[in-house]
Amino acid sequence: MTRVNFKLQGFSQLKEGTLHDDFQKITIDEKQYNVDQLKFDNPITGTLYGTLLNYKGEYEQLKPEMNDKPYQKPPQAPILYIKPINTFSTHHNPIPLPEGEEQVQIGAALGLVVGQTATKVKAEDAYDYIKGYTIVNDVSLPISSYYRPAIKQKARDGFCPIGPWVVNQGEIRDPHNLAIRVSVNGEVKQENYTGNLIRPIPELVSEVTEFMTLYEGDVLLIGVPENQPLAKEGDQVSIEIEQVGRLNNRVVHEDDVFVSEVAVDEAR
Amino acid sequence: MTRVNFKLQGFSQLKEGTLHDDFQKITIDEKQYNVDQLKFDNPITGTLYGTLLNYKGEYEQLKPEMNDKPYQKPPQAPILYIKPINTFSTHHNPIPLPEGEEQVQIGAALGLVVGQTATKVKAEDAYDYIKGYTIVNDVSLPISSYYRPAIKQKARDGFCPIGPWVVNQGEIRDPHNLAIRVSVNGEVKQENYTGNLIRPIPELVSEVTEFMTLYEGDVLLIGVPENQPLAKEGDQVSIEIEQVGRLNNRVVHEDDVFVSEVAVDEAR
Amino acid sequence: MTRVNFKLQGFSQLKEGTLHDDFQKITIDEKQYNVDQLKFDNPITGTLYGTLLNYKGEYEQLKPEMNDKPYQKPPQAPILYIKPINTFSTHHNPIPLPEGEEQVQIGAALGLVVGQTATKVKAEDAYDYIKGYTIVNDVSLPISSYYRPAIKQKARDGFCPIGPWVVNQGEIRDPHNLAIRVSVNGEVKQENYTGNLIRPIPELVSEVTEFMTLYEGDVLLIGVPENQPLAKEGDQVSIEIEQVGRLNNRVVHEDDVFVSEVAVDEAR
Amino acid sequence: MTRVNFKLQGFSQLKEGTLHDDFQKITIDEKQYNVDQLKFDNPITGTLYGTLLNYKGEYEQLKPEMNDKPYQKPPQAPILYIKPINTFSTHHNPIPLPEGEEQVQIGAALGLVVGQTATKVKAEDAYDYIKGYTIVNDVSLPISSYYRPAIKQKARDGFCPIGPWVVNQGEIRDPHNLAIRVSVNGEVKQENYTGNLIRPIPELVSEVTEFMTLYEGDVLLIGVPENQPLAKEGDQVSIEIEQVGRLNNRVVHEDDVFVSEVAVDEAR
Repeated sequence: MTRVNFKLQGFSQLKEGTLHDDFQKITIDEKQYNVDQLKFDNPITGTLYGTLLNYKGEYEQLKPEMNDKPYQKPPQAPILYIKPINTFSTHHNPIPLPEGEEQVQIGAALGLVVGQTATKVKAEDAYDYIKGYTIVNDVSLPISSYYRPAIKQKARDGFCPIGPWVVNQGEIRDPHNLAIRVSVNGEVKQENYTGNLIRPIPELVSEVTEFMTLYEGDVLLIGVPENQPLAKEGDQVSIEIEQVGRLNNRVVHEDDVFVSEVAVDEAR
Repeated sequence: MTRVNFKLQGFSQLKEGTLHDDFQKITIDEKQYNVDQLKFDNPITGTLYGTLLNYKGEYEQLKPEMNDKPYQKPPQAPILYIKPINTFSTHHNPIPLPEGEEQVQIGAALGLVVGQTATKVKAEDAYDYIKGYTIVNDVSLPISSYYRPAIKQKARDGFCPIGPWVVNQGEIRDPHNLAIRVSVNGEVKQENYTGNLIRPIPELVSEVTEFMTLYEGDVLLIGVPENQPLAKEGDQVSIEIEQVGRLNNRVVHEDDVFVSEVAVDEAR
Repeated sequence: MTRVNFKLQGFSQLKEGTLHDDFQKITIDEKQYNVDQLKFDNPITGTLYGTLLNYKGEYEQLKPEMNDKPYQKPPQAPILYIKPINTFSTHHNPIPLPEGEEQVQIGAALGLVVGQTATKVKAEDAYDYIKGYTIVNDVSLPISSYYRPAIKQKARDGFCPIGPWVVNQGEIRDPHNLAIRVSVNGEVKQENYTGNLIRPIPELVSEVTEFMTLYEGDVLLIGVPENQPLAKEGDQVSIEIEQVGRLNNRVVHEDDVFVSEVAVDEAR
Repeated sequence: MTRVNFKLQGFSQLKEGTLHDDFQKITIDEKQYNVDQLKFDNPITGTLYGTLLNYKGEYEQLKPEMNDKPYQKPPQAPILYIKPINTFSTHHNPIPLPEGEEQVQIGAALGLVVGQTATKVKAEDAYDYIKGYTIVNDVSLPISSYYRPAIKQKARDGFCPIGPWVVNQGEIRDPHNLAIRVSVNGEVKQENYTGNLIRPIPELVSEVTEFMTLYEGDVLLIGVPENQPLAKEGDQVSIEIEQVGRLNNRVVHEDDVFVSEVAVDEAR
């Protein structure tokens, strides 16, 4: 049983509920629903910050390149980027494949949802500022270099499904002990876990809020693991994070996003 | 052909499109859709103000009561009320019938969507501050008296479907010449037209902005005509405003709102 | 020592601080300031709901009138109204006196700041949904009757100073035991206390959320006590609520609001 | 005479006015004020996007480096970054100099304020989507390399003064013919003009909206010219853009930002 907050499409109210049966049932106002009966809207309200190079494996892969020009040494601080609101999308909404592109790259990330204004937070207080956890698919076009600010690849309309819900912070005992699994058409393409971080969550929150304020409703991604899978038109993508849930989206040609059928949940 | 703005459920972008074939087809980005294929979200972003007693017929009906205590004369200025955001709902979203209630009252209203900050606007400039028109169903529980501020009856969750879209202001030559028709289960229950106003649109905008500022995205209802129809559980309600569109919603017990089927559009 | 949240003019960050010395000093990020050195912005972000007829004295005064037409009995539920955002103003911002008016009426109210989505809250859980307390001056033009929805009198631009800050909920042991005092030009004109409520805070929250959802950031006023003082051009108005603070504003002709000097705090 | 929109501190209303006498006088509601009498708040409401490498001079300076690793060729599309809302600040608000830093770098930019949802806009229609122009000081800590996403240097609290106002789009005949001038303590430190762009405004808007949607209220910077001046504690910085106005801010130690005097406008 997991307590969550969420928003349903067409309703202005943020609702509370309790998940059970492996995320397949939800109880809202003492009434039980199949999760698949409900249409979840994006549950977040603030700015979404991604974090680069925070998975150890990704870091090791890029280390040779980082010791080369122009940097000649690895970064000393978390490197952040922003997914603007035109990218925000929902559980079951299609991911638009742009005309002329073959594939998109899937970025499976645990999102920390900020609960109160956070400035210069000490690592030991970090969890006081996190109100919950969600799943974010930080979609991008395949990028050849991690250097150049990649807004054109990462900030396209619909390139950031979020949800389906926010799991309350107190529900997860150890957020560094969660398996992350990406499936494409039901086949597991990537596995990692949230313990593989260079900066664990408390240090990440502390280092980021050292130089910038996070506000209630903002989301900070802990990073995206190495070896991101690719997905092509028609593929059904599912990101599962243990204890948090599953976020499912189908890749659809950009001309078809408004009328694509709600995908049957075969990825589960 | 009518140019409109709208928001689709699950998408953060406000979109533009062109309606044709009696509101049954819409062209977006040069591609044509059946309107029924799309799921429209609430298209408005600001505060929604209702106007009491602006239809001549409603005013005549209440005149005897108004000359009685406690007022003893009719109001000299527009009387406004606010539908707060917990009431906002969408085309095809169910209207929740509260436990213990038999019926809801349908309030068919043309909404003026404000296009820029409006303070002390002269009547002759009023249309410069209106960017478009939408349909609002100002639902309430049946009210015995128009006097007492009726938040409990009018401000319930889901009691204000809006949409499906905003028709651009330039598309409607004479907004005082539009038929308003409410159908319940396909049968016309109320007919009126927007010419029956005590304060026509320019005067209404001028008198309201004389004492309060309207912001871009706010919506001002021109009023609700007399003889509001009632609807009970299971009823399919449709408000049609000529040149603007049709707003359809089914009345559902409040415990069933999250899982009611999208109603087939039989009211048309 | 009282922990508060607030916003300063020109800064986007909501800040935390600790008040001491009878609200005259504040410590922010380990640095101490005189409260008068700082320019406080409006600390709230949601919808502001007022409550009519919740002070016992006000109720007694109006009872004869309520037993008369058109109601013939007192209201059975809390009667709410909304102050729209055009009314929102700040500590030390001038209150505009409209051309042609002699006086404004001061409405001293304790505001309950909502901390999370509140639907059908039980009275015994009400404080879990309140994140803090603030002071609201619900200004209006003098109103002869409490019946007619009074937007024209109550919803004028600048007619709702709020602040200076939000006192954290845990800081106040008994919110029904606070003296409320309104001074005009340093002279006490009205005294009451928050224990005089018909519906105490838990019942009020419960009855309101029975029929409508309150969202985080919304503010619910507990009511305005009877015998509201009047203030004329040039008057310095101060509302003091014990343990919460003081909210000071000068009444200024509406043509002078943008350039009025920040009033010296002589009302204290 | 220039028509502008702006927001004053402490007021919720966006106002309109007319500037005259070299930006020293402003007429609001038929009343004239000295600009220095008013306290301007940040006039924008959406996301702020910066553009890298859009001034020809900056591009020429970096060309040798760009032909080196890791890119080996100049970028083919506009490179964008985002200034998040924690950075937003106002005319006359202090710029915080972080502890341990000697100087900040001044980024003088013309901001295009978006007037309606902009997706895949053609260059010839670009001005239809711009509602006005403002001045942005894109402050950063000095950056040694333009490659690494520079959120830590550019996204610090208070590092983005904006304003004082938005000049209506129709007021400026040729936005590519405006002198930009940065003064520090009254001495001109940088001069450039808006004609020196690699991508002129219509092409920039077209190329950006090709891959992402801009919303009403968003701001897109046209770029920052080469040879950005530095400023140290106590310096008074003024950015002047011809026909648009002057944006003035003093650099202050980060511990002093809340109580710094409003700087006398000696930079003019």
